[in-house]
Amino acid sequence: MSNKEIPYKIYLEESEMPKAWYNLRADMKNKPAPLLDPQTHQPMKAEALSGVFCEELIKQELDDTTPYIEIPEAIRSFYKMYRPSPLVRAYCLEEKLQTPAKIYYKFEGNNTSGSHKLNSAIAQAYYAKEQGLKGVTTETGAGQWGTALSMACSYFGLDCRVHMVKVSYEQKPFRREVMRTYGASVTPSPSMDTEVGRKILAEHPGTTGSLGCAISEAVEEATKLDGYRYVLGSVLNQVMLHQSVIGLETKTALDKYGIKPDIIIGCAGGGSNLGGLIAPFMGEKIRSEADYRIIAVEPSSCPSFTRGKYVYDYCDTGMVCPLSKMYTLGSGFIPSASHAGGLRYHGMNSTLSQLYADGLMEAISVAQTEVFEAAELFARVEGILPAPESSHAIRIAINEAMKCKETGEEKTIVFGLTGTGYFDMYAYEKFHNGQMDNYVPTDDEIELALKKLPNVEE
Amino acid sequence: MSNKEIPYKIYLEESEMPKAWYNLRADMKNKPAPLLDPQTHQPMKAEALSGVFCEELIKQELDDTTPYIEIPEAIRSFYKMYRPSPLVRAYCLEEKLQTPAKIYYKFEGNNTSGSHKLNSAIAQAYYAKEQGLKGVTTETGAGQWGTALSMACSYFGLDCRVHMVKVSYEQKPFRREVMRTYGASVTPSPSMDTEVGRKILAEHPGTTGSLGCAISEAVEEATKLDGYRYVLGSVLNQVMLHQSVIGLETKTALDKYGIKPDIIIGCAGGGSNLGGLIAPFMGEKIRSEADYRIIAVEPSSCPSFTRGKYVYDYCDTGMVCPLSKMYTLGSGFIPSASHAGGLRYHGMNSTLSQLYADGLMEAISVAQTEVFEAAELFARVEGILPAPESSHAIRIAINEAMKCKETGEEKTIVFGLTGTGYFDMYAYEKFHNGQMDNYVPTDDEIELALKKLPNVEE
Repeated sequence: MSNKEIPYKIYLEESEMPKAWYNLRADMKNKPAPLLDPQTHQPMKAEALSGVFCEELIKQELDDTTPYIEIPEAIRSFYKMYRPSPLVRAYCLEEKLQTPAKIYYKFEGNNTSGSHKLNSAIAQAYYAKEQGLKGVTTETGAGQWGTALSMACSYFGLDCRVHMVKVSYEQKPFRREVMRTYGASVTPSPSMDTEVGRKILAEHPGTTGSLGCAISEAVEEATKLDGYRYVLGSVLNQVMLHQSVIGLETKTALDKYGIKPDIIIGCAGGGSNLGGLIAPFMGEKIRSEADYRIIAVEPSSCPSFTRGKYVYDYCDTGMVCPLSKMYTLGSGFIPSASHAGGLRYHGMNSTLSQLYADGLMEAISVAQTEVFEAAELFARVEGILPAPESSHAIRIAINEAMKCKETGEEKTIVFGLTGTGYFDMYAYEKFHNGQMDNYVPTDDEIELALKKLPNVEE
Repeated sequence: MSNKEIPYKIYLEESEMPKAWYNLRADMKNKPAPLLDPQTHQPMKAEALSGVFCEELIKQELDDTTPYIEIPEAIRSFYKMYRPSPLVRAYCLEEKLQTPAKIYYKFEGNNTSGSHKLNSAIAQAYYAKEQGLKGVTTETGAGQWGTALSMACSYFGLDCRVHMVKVSYEQKPFRREVMRTYGASVTPSPSMDTEVGRKILAEHPGTTGSLGCAISEAVEEATKLDGYRYVLGSVLNQVMLHQSVIGLETKTALDKYGIKPDIIIGCAGGGSNLGGLIAPFMGEKIRSEADYRIIAVEPSSCPSFTRGKYVYDYCDTGMVCPLSKMYTLGSGFIPSASHAGGLRYHGMNSTLSQLYADGLMEAISVAQTEVFEAAELFARVEGILPAPESSHAIRIAINEAMKCKETGEEKTIVFGLTGTGYFDMYAYEKFHNGQMDNYVPTDDEIELALKKLPNVEE
């Protein structure tokens, strides 16, 4: 093991933790396209969003000019309970691979929600509380966001109503109990409790659900209940803003030891963890201060970047949310019941979509069994049991490290390890028993879903 | 929140991590009683133990004179993957309780095994590998030790065969998959695969098992398989030795900030985490350099300290292991199927037993529902979902903090938070649904089990 002077885990001091979130959009030359009203196709105004979203969060959503937004003291206090998260040098993985590459991962799983989701959950709960709301509604895929939001709501004494994608609800019964421990209510989605749920069930009987469906149900519930708003764990730019703490901490830690990464890798579902991790690095890249290869990794079962179209689309299956310009597979696309529930979203954050369209980042899709092979290898040598979502990034980090082995290059690779797989043992069991499929949607399936795009003139 | 200069989490630098384990026995005036041969009742010699245990571990087991035993470089490297563990100031819990007490916890759950067990697992696997063995056998209760040992064996390329207490095997199906992820084999105990298992099943059909049964099965298997030895996750003094890293790190972290604890609290099953946590503090207490209240917390369903007898007893139900002098409920005592599987052991580590007999520490037992109330409260404010075992310590830490609230004393309380409850959601579900019992054994039950003690003359 070389380079002993760099510790296994780089922890920042509390005083080195970020005091403001970084809003990457402020530094972008081509700004992400604005959200549009689903009826008029005109840019959404704050007022029009205020029935669904919290006021301060709408401001953050629409702000593409302020580079730094101060983190309120109450949120910084909460962050201190589980942050800074460690930046880990994967010495054992490097040794196992016999690669000259230097691999680092930013590990966001060291909190009860088990993932990075808590970074935004606590911010959103805080603003909901400040606004005097009774509670919030939301959707959850793998259950990480729902757990994080339950914790955050419990902390601020807010009611929390979670619509959980049915396939995850069934595969992860204990996730529900974690959310209940924090006092949340959890309903499998689609359900018969909402209009949109009943409609989706009528059209797709036996569906295992999708994030798009669950979002529609949660939005409907928020607008019908007095004193409630809807909050979302990914996709939106406000979430990416909050997740910038990941990238800011990572950059501070690397700078502290004079390390300059060559490649930065993250998994991408809605895009918030990736967006948060890369934000300060992408800022430098846009300002031509540095060059980095930045890679988004998505499941081949839900390949929005690599096989989707960059157009305005509905954010949800029920078509009640604003339209967003993004790489999308169509809001009617229901991905196969893969085991990376958190990556089963038909679209992609609009900021990342613009960056990808501008050639500032790459994207790659990987098959499920390859992901679990990487996950198991990683678990055995690094001693962390990774979530299937996070393991997409591990897969590509390993692939890049193996390329370095061929070429002899000592590249520095940083990837985001977003969470732990404690509630994913059903998936690991399938993998151990050789029962895991690698379903990839056909071109026809994607084309069909893309036929239902809104007709927006640009 | 007072005392802002002390961070939420105190992390040591790698250079501050212990380079040697601390062997508390070397400083004890009254040494723990020696292990006895179950046949001759004479003190066990190293040679007689070598068919069951690894050679270097036997040396450590029998050594009550060497105060510091160097941690081999390979183990220190592994420790760096997940240690130092944080010493956390429970600011949010203090605020919730409105107590003047200052509460700290040493959190050992930040690794995939989810508990402190990894500290000894990696040491035992290392010595087994050094001895050239093919593999090891063991028992596991809650599954934490089995998971830790699976990880450690996978790291050194050893085969790992785990006998898992049946009640935990059934309540925690996903634990098995974690162990399989690391390549271990897992059998519910008692099983029909061993002589002792068949005997226990004949005598107690329908038993949900106990650590005592599982130990007997694992020992039998180790002696029958070529190139295998038996390893144990608690009870033994070698395990307490390895776990001294917990206490050493805790003490270094406290000393760094000039903090002197008044009360130190740990849960006690076999005693290794408690023994490890308190070791350096107890050393000071014995040398009259400091005074600390030290409290062991055990479940009222398995109250070895508070209702057991301090005598020589069998360590296992099958009576194949050496005899140990300890607080015991009798090796035939099968505790009710409580949800703290890791605390369901009939006896207690011999060193702790001697310290308790000498009045150097206190013990208290708590009911299961009180433990889960504390667990849920803790989860909601501190953001860590605690294991039921660890929550025994939380319960008493809260009780002591509430006493401070009454008296106005600003005591400093340190407790060991040994692990996370991700695999204990079945228990939390029972608790949420009001289906959790508080079974306490009757005096008759304990008396009956204590009738089968070995007849040792002292």
